[in-house]
Formats: sequence, structure tokens, C-alpha cells
Amino acid sequence: MSLPTTPAPSPAGAPATATTGVTLPKGFRAAGGRAGLKPSGLDDLALVVNDGPHPAAAAVFTCNQIVAAPVTLSREAVAAGEVSAVVINSGNANACTGPQGDADARTVQLSAAERLGRKPGEVAVCSTGIIGEPMPIHLVLDGLGPVAAALDGTPSAAEAAARAIMTTDTVPKQAGATVRSAAGGEFSLGAMGKGAGMLAPSLATMLAVVTTDALVEQNELDAALRAATAQSFERVDVDGATSTNDTVLVMASGASGVRPHPEEFAAALKGVCADLAGQMQLDAEGATKRVTIRVTGAATTEEAVAAARTIGRDTLVKCALFGSDPNWGRVLAAVGMAPVSLDPTGVEVSFNGHPVCRSSAAVPGAREVDLTARDIVVAVDLGVGEAAGEVHTTDLSLGYVEFNSAYTT
Amino acid sequence: MSLPTTPAPSPAGAPATATTGVTLPKGFRAAGGRAGLKPSGLDDLALVVNDGPHPAAAAVFTCNQIVAAPVTLSREAVAAGEVSAVVINSGNANACTGPQGDADARTVQLSAAERLGRKPGEVAVCSTGIIGEPMPIHLVLDGLGPVAAALDGTPSAAEAAARAIMTTDTVPKQAGATVRSAAGGEFSLGAMGKGAGMLAPSLATMLAVVTTDALVEQNELDAALRAATAQSFERVDVDGATSTNDTVLVMASGASGVRPHPEEFAAALKGVCADLAGQMQLDAEGATKRVTIRVTGAATTEEAVAAARTIGRDTLVKCALFGSDPNWGRVLAAVGMAPVSLDPTGVEVSFNGHPVCRSSAAVPGAREVDLTARDIVVAVDLGVGEAAGEVHTTDLSLGYVEFNSAYTT
Repeated sequence: MSLPTTPAPSPAGAPATATTGVTLPKGFRAAGGRAGLKPSGLDDLALVVNDGPHPAAAAVFTCNQIVAAPVTLSREAVAAGEVSAVVINSGNANACTGPQGDADARTVQLSAAERLGRKPGEVAVCSTGIIGEPMPIHLVLDGLGPVAAALDGTPSAAEAAARAIMTTDTVPKQAGATVRSAAGGEFSLGAMGKGAGMLAPSLATMLAVVTTDALVEQNELDAALRAATAQSFERVDVDGATSTNDTVLVMASGASGVRPHPEEFAAALKGVCADLAGQMQLDAEGATKRVTIRVTGAATTEEAVAAARTIGRDTLVKCALFGSDPNWGRVLAAVGMAPVSLDPTGVEVSFNGHPVCRSSAAVPGAREVDLTARDIVVAVDLGVGEAAGEVHTTDLSLGYVEFNSAYTT
Repeated sequence: MSLPTTPAPSPAGAPATATTGVTLPKGFRAAGGRAGLKPSGLDDLALVVNDGPHPAAAAVFTCNQIVAAPVTLSREAVAAGEVSAVVINSGNANACTGPQGDADARTVQLSAAERLGRKPGEVAVCSTGIIGEPMPIHLVLDGLGPVAAALDGTPSAAEAAARAIMTTDTVPKQAGATVRSAAGGEFSLGAMGKGAGMLAPSLATMLAVVTTDALVEQNELDAALRAATAQSFERVDVDGATSTNDTVLVMASGASGVRPHPEEFAAALKGVCADLAGQMQLDAEGATKRVTIRVTGAATTEEAVAAARTIGRDTLVKCALFGSDPNWGRVLAAVGMAPVSLDPTGVEVSFNGHPVCRSSAAVPGAREVDLTARDIVVAVDLGVGEAAGEVHTTDLSLGYVEFNSAYTT
């Protein structure tokens, strides 16, 4: 999942540079601060601004039919092709809030644009937090001034932004990479994200902002982002749920002056997305295991991923993994319900490299495999083809149930 | 879900009759006993025999691609059209056991047929219990003699059979009805079942045997069974999983001499199936809530059921219900991912009759609805059509995770 991030080169005499965060690439400023939306009193408002000189942006949004007001607004802004800033609040998702929610999202956009000296259409809006509660809009508007005034290109500003978008996250999540381009020179990417899988409780939407100083046109940025998210965020499936607010936004400034080859840029973007996705998997609520479901022998890649997803969503499999129980029978029962071709008498399963099932039957000693370690790889061969695919998930723990049954009561 | 069962009429002077169980209809004998497959030492072997005079049978089996050996065998037997007895063991599912498992299922069939004086093809075989462990075949063969010798048409024999098929069930599950036919005379149905949803742990397969003394031809029996299961067992969805062993077998003896109208018979069969399904829902492992997800305003019945199923499988919704939390935002986030048409800004939700969401936004007081009672009805209107459908599920409790993470370790 996580490609190693490339440390930023620090030439002798140059000031030390952070190797992570949305301000790592040239041409970006960020800030985080407090509007007062969270009962905890922690920071809850962030800005990331692209100062160009050649701004471009692309985004992917939740595929849920029920979308939050800021998603509708940001979709329009990104489609119009002029986004060069984003305002993000935590503490309230502004989802299922009706026409007032739409108006509130637009008010935040207008106010942020005014503070930043931008046109409204240049500002994307993201919200994360509780669903169905009216947005305390005056708090956001009051908070915007100080946060805008704090905008800065330093690593600490990036981290402040990363902290301000946290909800149930236990740690801020940042990534970054500096790439020596085959085209000559180097370009950087930075990122921040929050969330625990595609959605854990209703208040843990997945949001991510990626920045880069590469010179990239919008259509190329869009293609690279879709490819990167398909291989990273979309392969993390903690509980099968998808929020009303999920957004991944990438902004390019062009400030490095380096125009990488599209494949080079796509690989780098995939790297930082995978890094963030891995951090989200690791921080999923209540998770005690980091689980990879790897399917081989499938007819197509799509079927391999679908089979892995079916296994990774099976509550019985996930409970067994929580109990460190090498219960391969549940894996077979789960994969047998996946909408894929498989050989019913030819399925193979291994846990952490130990074969436990061959020809859809037990391998001697299968029940003795030790799964007490934190990382578990469940490998399943469907026996019908050559395609492979994997999904990253977690166990289903007592902590998950405790957390998600007690959140709003 | 549960149609009330009709008490059997007891004419003055007639011996008291049980109103439930597979021996309620005339022409059936049953028995339960101990083969020694369960570590608990409880009964684990059951027989139900149809003595005619006009035997017919039909069955539905799991749609899992991975099927247990007895399912393959019983499918063949039912297809051949001569099934008039069933042998059921608990304690071992004989699933994922390879060619030896196939041989073992056939050995059980042969031995039971011999004990009963039937042809092998007249005997269906069902197994439930742990997956992937070899069947202790000698224990089953040794146990068959005493169980066959105990076959009897009494209510206590039916209850012994119902107890012997239990695995994680906390209570035996029986149903029955006696119907005064529009065709004149009366016919009865009896039933036993086990399991907690379509599958809860790998060892809680759903099995059900229904008996009737109505005169019913095989094709009519088959059609009635498919209609009944679609409206009963298939609408119970505790955890979205489907076992390798699920079987519902119905046998008709014709001993009442009454040939009911097909619709009359189908309604009665649906009634006992719904009764059993409701008992399974109530006894689901770890469940603290009995939840009905009722969807209206759908484009088609299929979409209504699909939407209800998506909501009923959502772990976040189920955790909220465990916590008696009226978290309608999670219901909206879940239904928005269902593969159905809906009006994204026109969804309505109520909990136990209290409106909590209208036009996809909060109704004042929504968070104060009291969901502490055991039964919860989640009603969702999709706002696009006239069709309706419902699914019965449970909450996702700490008990479910505890139970399913500790079962085989």
C-alpha cells in the first residue's frame, strides 16, 4: 500500500525543508485554526491556497447519491476549472441539511474568497463532522479571518491545517515526496488527509488535499488523480460504507517550473495517495489489525478486487481476525458469495504465507497458524485465471462497536 | 414477519394435539438423539420420515458457490423427485472437506436409507456445524441406529428432533398451523429450524424442515416453497452472510386427504416459514434488538428490498441501533449507496413511527427519539415510486463480536 516517500533533498546551506505536508511544494500556503465547531474546543478550520503561477485542480467526490452541500458546490467549482483554494471545516458535515445547508456552503465560499482576494468559483469547500445538524455558520465566518491571516508556507502551517481537519482521527495525516524528474529538475507533492476508511462513523468522512508544484494541465491532473485514487483510497475498505462528504482534491501550482512526464507524475501522485490511505487504514476506529486481502487466480482484475472486497467486508471474517482466529472456513463461505468466477473445489487460502486451505479443503495444521501479530495478509486463489487484486481493511473489534454505538448518545 | 399460527382445533374428547413441530401433520415421524459430534455432549442427530401415502418434496439450497457435501447430495436427491426422509446432524458441517466429505455424506445417506428401509435416493442429508473439519463418520453411523429406533409421531419426538439440530441456537425453533381448507376438511403444516439469520458464525447454518399432510404435487410444492422462502427466510439478514449449508426442505405426505387450492397452501406455507424466520431473527447471536427495515416509495419491490438490505447490512447503522441511537444520518448515508433510484433531496425516515428526517434533512427533535425498546422499525421512503419491501435484521452488538471472535479459539 504505502510507497516510501522520497525525502526532500536538502543542499548544504539551504534551510531544512519538511518532507511532508501541503506546503512542501512551492507555491502553497496553509493555515489551521479554531472556529468553535467542536465540543472539544480543538482546531476545526483549515485553508490551503495555491499561489500558482500556473494553477490547476482536479477532484474526486463520493459516489453516494446523498451528498453534502459542500460536495455539490465544490463539484461545480472544480468542473468550472478555476479552483485554487480550499476551505475545510471539521465538527459539522453540512450534510442532510436541506436548502439552508446549500446556502451555508455558499456563504462560506463567498466569505473565504473575499478574505483571500479570489473569485468565489476559485474556492472549494469541504466539511466533515456530524450529519444532519445545521451548520453554525456565524462561527465559521468569524473564524475565517484569523485563519486567513495565519496563511503561511511553512511546515508548521501545513501541520496546523492537517490537525484542524481531524475528527475521530487520533493523529494528523500528512504525506509528501520530492521527485527528481526525468525531464530535468525536481518537483514535489504534499498531502494531508483525515478519516478512517471510506467512512467509519458518520462523522469520519474521508477528506484529502494533495498539492504539487509540478507543471500539470487540468486534464492530466484529473486523469492522474482518478488513477491514483482507484489504486489507493478506493482499495481501503474499513467497513464498506461511503460517506456523504468524501472528497480528494489535488491542486498544482506549476511553481517548480518542471513539467514531468504524465506517467512520472501519475506514479508520484499514486505514491502520496497510497501513503495517506495507509495512514487512514492504520488509524481506523477501533481497529486492532491491519488486514490485506489479496486475491489471485481471478478471471479479471475487477473480479479479483470484487472478491477481495467481499471477503474484507464479511463481518464473520473480520470478527475472526479480531480474535486472531485462522478461521479459513469463513473466508471460503464469504468468497463463495462474491459475484465472481471461482473454482468451487479449487480455492486456496493462506494466512501470512501459511497455506490453510487447498482444493477448498483444510491443510493439516491450518487451525494452528498464529495470527496474533498486528498485520495479517489473507491470500486467496480463486483457481480460474491469472488476474490479481487486493483490498486493505481492518478487523471488526469490540472497540469499533463501542465507538460507533456510543458516538452521538 | 410472523403470521400468527392457527391453533389446531381440538374437538371435545379428542386427544390434545401439539400445535407445532414436524409431527403435527399426519404421516410423519421424527426423532432426535446423540451421535457424539458436539463437545457439549448434547443431541446432534435427527431424522424426519414421511410415511405418505402420497409423498412429495421440494427444497431450496444456499446460493453460495462453495457448497457443503450434503447440499450437493441432497440437491440431486430432491431433483430426482423421491425424497421422503431427511437425516440431519449438527456439530459438523461437512463443508470444505473435499472428496472425503462427498463420500461421507453418501455413506450417511446409505446407512440412513438402510435403517429406514428406503432407497438411498429417498433420503436427503443436512449437516451444520464447524466448516473444514473431517466428519467423524463412525459416530454418525453408530448414532443412526438408536435414533431410527426412536422414530415416533408424537410432539415430543418432533421437539427432540428440533433440539438435535441446534448449534448456537439458544432455544429450539418449531412452528405449525392447521388450516380449515376452502376445499373441505383441514390440513396441517409443521416445521423445525435452526440458525441465526442466513448465517451467523460458520457454525450456525440455517436449516429448516417443513412437513404437511396436504395433498400437494411436487411442482406445486416447489413453487410454494420458493415463494414462501423469498418472503421469509430470505428477508432475514442478520449479517449479510450466506452459509455453505443453508437448506429448507418441505415434505408433503398427503395423509390428510385434503387437496388445498394452491394459493391457500402457499399462504399457509409462507406463514410457518415466516414464523420460523422470526424465531431465528429473535435468537441471532448477540442480538439485543429486533429490527425491521421497511422501505416505501421505491420504483420496484426489488429496489425496495435492495435498499432495505443495504441499510440492514450497514455496520454503522447497526452499531447505532445497538446503542439505541436515533442516528438517521447513518441511515441516509447507507441508503445513498444502495443500487436503487431515490430522490437525493426527498428521502424520509422514521424510527418507530416518529419522523426524524424529511426532505433528506432533520425533523426537529429527531435526536430525542427513544429507541431503548427491543423492537425497532426503521421506515425509509425513497420518494420516487409506489413500491415497498422490508428486511428483518438485528443490531451489531458487542456480544456479536465477542461471540464470533472467540468461537473456535
